[in-house]
Amino acid sequence: MNDRAPVADLAQPTHLSALAPRYRAIRAATEALAAPLSAEDCAIQSMPDASPVKWHLAHTSWFFETFVLEPHVPGYRVYDAAFRMLFNSYYNAVGDKHPRPQRGLLSRPSLDAIRGYRAHVDAAMDTLLARTGSASRLGALIELGLNHEQQHQELILTDVKHLLSRNPLKPAYALAQTADAAAGAPPLEWVEFREGLVEIGHDGSGFAFDNETPRHRQYLEAFALASRPVTNAEYAAFIADGGYRRPELWLSEGWDWVNANGIAAPLYWEDSSGGARQFTLHGMRPFDAHAPACHVSLFEADAYARWAGARLPTEAEWEVAAATVPVEGRFSEDGALHPSPARRDRAPLAQLFGDVWEWTQSAYAPYPGFRPAAGAIGEYNGKFMCNQYVLRGGSCATPRMHIRATYRNFFPATARWQFSGFRLARDS
Amino acid sequence: MNDRAPVADLAQPTHLSALAPRYRAIRAATEALAAPLSAEDCAIQSMPDASPVKWHLAHTSWFFETFVLEPHVPGYRVYDAAFRMLFNSYYNAVGDKHPRPQRGLLSRPSLDAIRGYRAHVDAAMDTLLARTGSASRLGALIELGLNHEQQHQELILTDVKHLLSRNPLKPAYALAQTADAAAGAPPLEWVEFREGLVEIGHDGSGFAFDNETPRHRQYLEAFALASRPVTNAEYAAFIADGGYRRPELWLSEGWDWVNANGIAAPLYWEDSSGGARQFTLHGMRPFDAHAPACHVSLFEADAYARWAGARLPTEAEWEVAAATVPVEGRFSEDGALHPSPARRDRAPLAQLFGDVWEWTQSAYAPYPGFRPAAGAIGEYNGKFMCNQYVLRGGSCATPRMHIRATYRNFFPATARWQFSGFRLARDS
Amino acid sequence: MNDRAPVADLAQPTHLSALAPRYRAIRAATEALAAPLSAEDCAIQSMPDASPVKWHLAHTSWFFETFVLEPHVPGYRVYDAAFRMLFNSYYNAVGDKHPRPQRGLLSRPSLDAIRGYRAHVDAAMDTLLARTGSASRLGALIELGLNHEQQHQELILTDVKHLLSRNPLKPAYALAQTADAAAGAPPLEWVEFREGLVEIGHDGSGFAFDNETPRHRQYLEAFALASRPVTNAEYAAFIADGGYRRPELWLSEGWDWVNANGIAAPLYWEDSSGGARQFTLHGMRPFDAHAPACHVSLFEADAYARWAGARLPTEAEWEVAAATVPVEGRFSEDGALHPSPARRDRAPLAQLFGDVWEWTQSAYAPYPGFRPAAGAIGEYNGKFMCNQYVLRGGSCATPRMHIRATYRNFFPATARWQFSGFRLARDS
Amino acid sequence: MNDRAPVADLAQPTHLSALAPRYRAIRAATEALAAPLSAEDCAIQSMPDASPVKWHLAHTSWFFETFVLEPHVPGYRVYDAAFRMLFNSYYNAVGDKHPRPQRGLLSRPSLDAIRGYRAHVDAAMDTLLARTGSASRLGALIELGLNHEQQHQELILTDVKHLLSRNPLKPAYALAQTADAAAGAPPLEWVEFREGLVEIGHDGSGFAFDNETPRHRQYLEAFALASRPVTNAEYAAFIADGGYRRPELWLSEGWDWVNANGIAAPLYWEDSSGGARQFTLHGMRPFDAHAPACHVSLFEADAYARWAGARLPTEAEWEVAAATVPVEGRFSEDGALHPSPARRDRAPLAQLFGDVWEWTQSAYAPYPGFRPAAGAIGEYNGKFMCNQYVLRGGSCATPRMHIRATYRNFFPATARWQFSGFRLARDS
Repeated sequence: MNDRAPVADLAQPTHLSALAPRYRAIRAATEALAAPLSAEDCAIQSMPDASPVKWHLAHTSWFFETFVLEPHVPGYRVYDAAFRMLFNSYYNAVGDKHPRPQRGLLSRPSLDAIRGYRAHVDAAMDTLLARTGSASRLGALIELGLNHEQQHQELILTDVKHLLSRNPLKPAYALAQTADAAAGAPPLEWVEFREGLVEIGHDGSGFAFDNETPRHRQYLEAFALASRPVTNAEYAAFIADGGYRRPELWLSEGWDWVNANGIAAPLYWEDSSGGARQFTLHGMRPFDAHAPACHVSLFEADAYARWAGARLPTEAEWEVAAATVPVEGRFSEDGALHPSPARRDRAPLAQLFGDVWEWTQSAYAPYPGFRPAAGAIGEYNGKFMCNQYVLRGGSCATPRMHIRATYRNFFPATARWQFSGFRLARDS
Repeated sequence: MNDRAPVADLAQPTHLSALAPRYRAIRAATEALAAPLSAEDCAIQSMPDASPVKWHLAHTSWFFETFVLEPHVPGYRVYDAAFRMLFNSYYNAVGDKHPRPQRGLLSRPSLDAIRGYRAHVDAAMDTLLARTGSASRLGALIELGLNHEQQHQELILTDVKHLLSRNPLKPAYALAQTADAAAGAPPLEWVEFREGLVEIGHDGSGFAFDNETPRHRQYLEAFALASRPVTNAEYAAFIADGGYRRPELWLSEGWDWVNANGIAAPLYWEDSSGGARQFTLHGMRPFDAHAPACHVSLFEADAYARWAGARLPTEAEWEVAAATVPVEGRFSEDGALHPSPARRDRAPLAQLFGDVWEWTQSAYAPYPGFRPAAGAIGEYNGKFMCNQYVLRGGSCATPRMHIRATYRNFFPATARWQFSGFRLARDS
Repeated sequence: MNDRAPVADLAQPTHLSALAPRYRAIRAATEALAAPLSAEDCAIQSMPDASPVKWHLAHTSWFFETFVLEPHVPGYRVYDAAFRMLFNSYYNAVGDKHPRPQRGLLSRPSLDAIRGYRAHVDAAMDTLLARTGSASRLGALIELGLNHEQQHQELILTDVKHLLSRNPLKPAYALAQTADAAAGAPPLEWVEFREGLVEIGHDGSGFAFDNETPRHRQYLEAFALASRPVTNAEYAAFIADGGYRRPELWLSEGWDWVNANGIAAPLYWEDSSGGARQFTLHGMRPFDAHAPACHVSLFEADAYARWAGARLPTEAEWEVAAATVPVEGRFSEDGALHPSPARRDRAPLAQLFGDVWEWTQSAYAPYPGFRPAAGAIGEYNGKFMCNQYVLRGGSCATPRMHIRATYRNFFPATARWQFSGFRLARDS
Repeated sequence: MNDRAPVADLAQPTHLSALAPRYRAIRAATEALAAPLSAEDCAIQSMPDASPVKWHLAHTSWFFETFVLEPHVPGYRVYDAAFRMLFNSYYNAVGDKHPRPQRGLLSRPSLDAIRGYRAHVDAAMDTLLARTGSASRLGALIELGLNHEQQHQELILTDVKHLLSRNPLKPAYALAQTADAAAGAPPLEWVEFREGLVEIGHDGSGFAFDNETPRHRQYLEAFALASRPVTNAEYAAFIADGGYRRPELWLSEGWDWVNANGIAAPLYWEDSSGGARQFTLHGMRPFDAHAPACHVSLFEADAYARWAGARLPTEAEWEVAAATVPVEGRFSEDGALHPSPARRDRAPLAQLFGDVWEWTQSAYAPYPGFRPAAGAIGEYNGKFMCNQYVLRGGSCATPRMHIRATYRNFFPATARWQFSGFRLARDS
């Protein structure tokens, strides 16, 4: 989900005006996420993979300006011609791009200027959305822009978390009342699924990114899926058992990565013992044994699974299993911004949505019959289908309305700064 | 196929002695490949991905010594205790390894000493293979060692080709009479396949590596496969049309790779115009317009396919299509050691086997139900199932008896020093 | 002059109170330099060699806190214990240091908090400087801190210039009225000096850094020194004559540097023709043909000299020649913040002080008998005496009162972001 | 002394024929050094700083072919036109060069072919040297070529030592009878020198490289020089006292180098305790406590000196002190190829010549009035006068006749694979 934008399904609301409240709510949510941050917090880039918050605020506006306002609103006045290049993420068809690793060099335009940019775009969008008439293609583009903005809402949190973690002061993004620690996670159970021909992919009702289409058949062997993600306590047992020192547990490339980078615990663990503290968006916090293990790479998830005598699920297994479970995000419930323990009264498959993104063993690849959209919009998803792996489910930092069973998130096997955990699977 | 060794299927000949002629033939074939080379040619490592020929000669013997002779021949005298570490490729369970990028630092042991090592191992194997009794597990290990040695036969050719190409003198590995240039390649036709549930994977008759198992079902949508690989002339048209300068044709990571490395043509092309010469194992040779394009990365194959309005096949599509075509390698026919044009009288699907390895779009991943073998042998294939892509079919450098429809070769998306080409596919 | 702090000579004013006005003026001058900048401008680090302005503001205060207030003011309350590590530049004897390349990751403490830090230190210094009694060691330390702060005043300008130059918007640090372009630079004349035994180094009157001591004898052969630095127009002629493409003009390491980095003109030239514009602290400005060439590396200065049939002076030659010329800085005159043409009525040796730092051919090394100060203060200069070269004279960004003939500035041969130019010399 | 060739003084023997025996002896000595090595030993390059022995054998012949035979022998037939580029070390004026880090990729031409090249050049040189007539410029060039070849004789030994050290088998270049271990090194005494104006540099009698000229005056303060180099036992005491873990002992860049590379002992020490073994050209050998410490960088020499309350000498101090001591090399005495303890009956200043190259604190820079020779020959020394430091005296691997008091060897501050040690100095 590297700054990527999505391609909208064409099934859309019939009137533009119906989108207006949703547009305002999502734009306001983005600004609320930046509200606790200073101009300095918003300006700095902590690594090439992450972007400054200010850049996210600008790029999401650039998206509406470039793909909605410029082509569809006659007489629209561009806010600043230089922004076309400055805030282009990766759309070669749009033209030049400011290099990604240099996003953190832009002390100008200031955060205030970017807020002016957002207001300018919002005003033009307000006028557009007040239009009568059917939505069709234009509505689909706006819906795409809103889903795009929701993706960047999560990235604002993951990127600022990384930035603050690099500061020896370990400052908090926001303070929250401490939740009561859970007494324990429910026992791990195996939920069985029979072999057979299944269908996965988006069925066309509501919005989806192009990479979720087309819906298609796949044959699955019988399998079992764990009832909940692996917890911090379980992951600590893997470490205590020498997990990071035993090459037989690791993919070859993962073993090289562990040794070249001195990896010995998930990102943001203060030490590898699991007895101490973890860095969170609320600052350093006590180790939460029963919450899902988080901020692990695919390599770590895969090694744990091998250690546990299990494996990671494929994305098809995950989707088939998740298809019958209603989405319920945790984000809106407690604003915890970190994974929380599952409640005991959950369904056979708990914590599928809104706790941690769950690594699958599936390489990110086109579904059979996949067609990217025409034009610049076609660059959003398809061109990243190489050397990345699919994650499913959505995390505590994902907007609740942005979560669905067919959603395909993707990152390289080494990525850890997202809220990424995993759930075990096994052959039946 | 990075130095990897395979895991044998247990269906084996009933008597060890039945393996003796095959053992001698394959070992002799390896030495024949090294025969045109000097000690200096055999000592140098031209890049970390490649190994010195001397190392291949030693490592293949190490394989028999470590996995067959030491554990199964009481009283076997190890040739040199230091070789256990020196010629271990990547088996963590065996112990320490000499680092791969430093294989080229070993001026000692000399090529002569390595030949002594081979003779020592061969003598012990001769004695072992003269035993009566059933083969079972031991026979399976020996068969595995022989297939392993065949893999390294191809690597000897690809690695020495790379070494000689780095020499400004552009020396030849071996001289061959010039083949008559073909009048032209047969026209590209599309062979259609219907949708349905298929089976792929090894069926258990004869040898296979563990990564070809288990045979399993997969659902395929209807597709069409090109009747032959893309030719040099066709690839030159892609270049002439700006193929390497048009980002919309490339995977994002591929586009970065092209620009960071100044890629403008397949490896070993003298220039990108296609009008000039190519480096071959016979030295610089005229451009062969009708032979399959070779020494391209997955990124290049994928970009060409997009340019052509097509795509690469999945490995399942390739295997299903290939299953009915008899294997016929070109290697033994003319010893050309470079891809040759297809003859016009071929079957609807030509040049599947023994011309170029054909990139597929499939990430190298475990088949459903895959189980690596127990012990060190289990490290051969499974641990490489990440960030690599599957190639099918076998090349002009692959031993003919080593080719089969279920064979899964694999390399990273950037690899070009293998004899790698591609064939187009499309949705029906 | 990498963040380095100096070691004070012990000859000092007799009363601390005499230092108070000077302390206030220098501290205020630092803040005046930061005044045109936003919090975002002050937070970002554009390369490992440069530091954020906020860091300079904090580190100069840290210097007074760590070396003056903590050891000499009983009961002094440290502003924030974490700052000891956070703003330690390179004093191993003080303890841990925040890594230099990560100075730009500190969005916290905020610029406002750093201003609070400065005020806290200033208040404690005010109290200290109101004390009666003789100054001696304490006064020497304060004087050292003030000279240290002056060094960082120049670094604030060079570092923010680099940051703004990396921004595609090419923003200005400050706007200034355009100076009238000079009609021309005075003709270059050669000023002759006879051979003989000379003395160089600081003579003990007034402040000096330890690396300027002890004053000592050196034997010089006869030489001639150019009457003024090389100008932009002269340097453009070198470029036009193929200067950057002729290996015979370059030191071997310089030639490698040119080719590896694609160097074709001084830093901040828009293009290499010299006909266009240069980036300055006032934004992009027309090429100033008659001003001294600036922002060149030692390698470029040396290559130009070879092209011109001359050489760079040694630091002893430069100092002996400069010893009789009064210091006159340009900074206070016009606030130009970029080198200006010499006026025609100058002395035989013009523009020695306050235009551009002038590269010498002298490696930065200890003078005979050099002794670094005891304790942490001893780390300031001596430990950098390797692989750096001496520059003399002071630039348009150097505080005027900080300039003297014995001053030794030093940077690696590749450094270009300082205001560095050069003057020719030749054997007589 | 990186492959560099020297510029000859023009004072030469009056008849070419007088050079013939010397030519034959030096050429034969080079081949004798390569005699114990296989073709494989001679082909491999162990790091970019080192060259394959085969390359040294060819390049020294290339020198005679390019600078003597081609321009001065009408009708001379070049051995192989491709060699002009292949064996050009760094002479831009000669044309293209095969890149230094790729010298180890040349399995062809073979060692036998290179021997043919040497014989071809020697035959032509024989004819040339049989000519009557005065030598003048031509004789100077030949003398230069011979001194050049002597430099490469030492490099053959240092480079093959490095190659063999990288081999886990730790093979010997040659076996020698074990010398009797010395009972002890003589006590270190300080030899005092008075201040005054001195002269250093070559005085014009006999051969010298251009960088030794012109002889010139320099003023020295009083100093003292240690009577012998620092020994292994003394260096081990530095290590035992935490020398590699105390930043206050190190130049800043040296401290970074120690930590980035995990340096904890001289190169070729098996461990840092000094109690164990050292790798030598005779294989692993017992630690020789009383021999000069060897294979240290300038950084290590400098840190040791600071630890010992001393400093390194300047090259002028060293030369002035050495000027009255007769040269006596150890190489020819025992063929030990590693530094040996001094005999007790030595002069006040022992082991100046032929034990270890001694680091000085002097940056490698042109002497006042230095003029490189015209043409390609001028590239030999001058262009390396940046970021290197001077070593004096010659090592156990330096041909005895190649040693003189004015000789300036030079390497970067991190170089350790030469036979480099050091001697202490201090202010008087």
